[in-house]
Amino acid sequence: MARRYTRVITTPAAARIPREWNRPFVSLLSDWGARDPSAAICRSVVLGIAPDALIVDITHEVDKYQVRHGALLLWCALPFLPIGAHMAVVDPGVGTSRRPIALETERGDYLVGPDNGLLLAGAQRLGGVTRCHVIENPQYRLPVVSSTFHGRDLFAPAAAHLAAGVPLAQIGPAIDPRELQSVEWPQITVQNGSLETAVIYCDTFGNVKLAGLTADLTDALGLLYPGMELTLSVGNGSGVRSERITWQASFGGVPVGRRLLYEDSYGRLCIAENQGNAARSLELSDGVPVAIARGHATE
Amino acid sequence: MARRYTRVITTPAAARIPREWNRPFVSLLSDWGARDPSAAICRSVVLGIAPDALIVDITHEVDKYQVRHGALLLWCALPFLPIGAHMAVVDPGVGTSRRPIALETERGDYLVGPDNGLLLAGAQRLGGVTRCHVIENPQYRLPVVSSTFHGRDLFAPAAAHLAAGVPLAQIGPAIDPRELQSVEWPQITVQNGSLETAVIYCDTFGNVKLAGLTADLTDALGLLYPGMELTLSVGNGSGVRSERITWQASFGGVPVGRRLLYEDSYGRLCIAENQGNAARSLELSDGVPVAIARGHATE
Amino acid sequence: MARRYTRVITTPAAARIPREWNRPFVSLLSDWGARDPSAAICRSVVLGIAPDALIVDITHEVDKYQVRHGALLLWCALPFLPIGAHMAVVDPGVGTSRRPIALETERGDYLVGPDNGLLLAGAQRLGGVTRCHVIENPQYRLPVVSSTFHGRDLFAPAAAHLAAGVPLAQIGPAIDPRELQSVEWPQITVQNGSLETAVIYCDTFGNVKLAGLTADLTDALGLLYPGMELTLSVGNGSGVRSERITWQASFGGVPVGRRLLYEDSYGRLCIAENQGNAARSLELSDGVPVAIARGHATE
Repeated sequence: MARRYTRVITTPAAARIPREWNRPFVSLLSDWGARDPSAAICRSVVLGIAPDALIVDITHEVDKYQVRHGALLLWCALPFLPIGAHMAVVDPGVGTSRRPIALETERGDYLVGPDNGLLLAGAQRLGGVTRCHVIENPQYRLPVVSSTFHGRDLFAPAAAHLAAGVPLAQIGPAIDPRELQSVEWPQITVQNGSLETAVIYCDTFGNVKLAGLTADLTDALGLLYPGMELTLSVGNGSGVRSERITWQASFGGVPVGRRLLYEDSYGRLCIAENQGNAARSLELSDGVPVAIARGHATE
Repeated sequence: MARRYTRVITTPAAARIPREWNRPFVSLLSDWGARDPSAAICRSVVLGIAPDALIVDITHEVDKYQVRHGALLLWCALPFLPIGAHMAVVDPGVGTSRRPIALETERGDYLVGPDNGLLLAGAQRLGGVTRCHVIENPQYRLPVVSSTFHGRDLFAPAAAHLAAGVPLAQIGPAIDPRELQSVEWPQITVQNGSLETAVIYCDTFGNVKLAGLTADLTDALGLLYPGMELTLSVGNGSGVRSERITWQASFGGVPVGRRLLYEDSYGRLCIAENQGNAARSLELSDGVPVAIARGHATE
Repeated sequence: MARRYTRVITTPAAARIPREWNRPFVSLLSDWGARDPSAAICRSVVLGIAPDALIVDITHEVDKYQVRHGALLLWCALPFLPIGAHMAVVDPGVGTSRRPIALETERGDYLVGPDNGLLLAGAQRLGGVTRCHVIENPQYRLPVVSSTFHGRDLFAPAAAHLAAGVPLAQIGPAIDPRELQSVEWPQITVQNGSLETAVIYCDTFGNVKLAGLTADLTDALGLLYPGMELTLSVGNGSGVRSERITWQASFGGVPVGRRLLYEDSYGRLCIAENQGNAARSLELSDGVPVAIARGHATE
């Protein structure tokens, strides 16, 4: 009998770099792009508030308005970053009633950004949300707050102040973390002998990340081993295409140009093509259904 | 009667982060792109001269040779950056007789780059140019100066030395700031009931920045308010297309996919499409004429 | 009689910024792209090990899997970087038997990356390889080493530890530098009156870098001077196209839109188009044969 659930964002992994940091650490993630000066402005705003801050840009090239992409990239990156204040802004609702928030995580980080689900996967990856406050105190914002650039006016200042030691409770009123907005992740269906899932991200190599961790495929198929023969089906309805594929430990397990299934370096299920671009050759994009079954289908 | 003028680069706004900095600050802007190592080389050259320098890359993705784009992005960014030395290089005339210059601004910054108009809008935004010197002193350049990479050989070293405390007068001979080259900005025509202007920049979201500040539209139309009905006309001659549009305080003031006029976070007039790309859907690019009139045209 | 050789990677130039550095310096180069968080993760891993490290990203936009591009960019950049540990990862063989290595250079740098030829041109540019060790000691890696992200798990930690003072010999067993894998560079053929070479890189301006330094063209043609008339032939067999071109000291030596031959700021032979894109207008890409001859061919 099929077991259905979503498990994109949960993980048992503890933070891997839990060392205490001796100076304020701030990371930045957004969909602002590298051509415009928005990221540099936020970096400078942080330095104006916390001149000793160490700043790392996770990325500013999240696909425009793709909150779920941003959430996934935070989930990937945060465990490897020092404990600090992490500003993330993928914010199609900027200037509307969505709330600007600052979370505290179990690991001791602050996550700062819009209340649209962007921050939750990363927070869970750092042990979960312990407290959440709305960013309201004018003392910790820029003097003028625009309606279209809260990164500069609200979020970067809040992150800088938190990294520099301002108590979270001073940022604004507390809200119940259970009231926070979340993003929807594709459902995973585990059956004996097959896993149904979907594409959630294609990286710059064309490697295709699926909803689900390796453990989900193990639940469905039992122990995985390099060279294990599988059937990969993509698409749905009459558009399903199936092909033979193998499970591998690394890209080099198959010849150049051949596709493989593997566990990426974050523990996620992935499709790749050795020195090729699987997203392009399989014409995959966000949300496309993917099924993985034991053995080789007849072709 | 129509009043014609250009007001792209002037602003009454004082610097917003005027705090004194306790270590050399250097910012970098160019059209070199992120794929080539030019920006990293300049960053390293700065560090070789001023090892304690704090460096922020404003952007290195200015469209190739687009001096006016670079000038606008400096205008946007500099007020939010700490006081320091700002190197900017969009320099189609590298290796010709155009002069390498270093300006001092009223706020106390140094702007370093080619004398082709790139630096002037940013300098005005920081209170105006107080002094200007040509970069000539071999002591503050790399030992060998190439004909094609003055960023590395002249500008980054000059910015680093200035940030580290070398007096501007030692960089080379003084020149009269009024002799500096300027870039041409589109003219704005304010009439009772309409504003004629033009596109000067499309950002990575496809938001379209126009020549002119919000005050210019207020001059033409009176008080603006969210939901105010306007007519937007783009193009010229027989190619003019007009549409109904509204003035809004933020993107969310209109449904997803609908266009709006708004004041961007720098005080500029902008056209956007809520969660869309206005530059693409309106087929707008640099220099296209745009007129904004009160009320709705009959369609 | 023709003299054939390859001389892409050798150079007599000594390091140009040999000053001693008072804190750990780490540079990063890869083909990971700016959209994914890989580079930020490596930066953070370095900071977790060497919190005082100064880090410069040379680029993360090397074309995917293009080991030779990465090698060339290291060759260009490293002489201008402070002495330090330089991590470079363009690694189509990640997870296979190719060895992870750390080199020491004559200048005193460490180069860290896969043994696939990526590091050698840069090392020669810094005086050559003095010692080489395989990265094996678990003490200087992350606790878990994945099969697909050695940058994070092996190379960034090794670079950080080396920059922080860990002796090279503790990283793992020594290997003979003469056993290292190399990349193949196009052959240069110098004849009296002509040079045969090939394209090795097109930069973001469309400037086309050729195998060979200016000295190679001087060997073939004698003294070069601005305005010197040459014939440029690209392609091979029946597809060869020839055109008149001139040698110039800078782009501005020819009108806008006209092509030129010049020495780039690293001493390499280059084809450019003044304020244009020579790679696009000549339809050039990696490996295309290029010949340069004295005088103008009849057309």
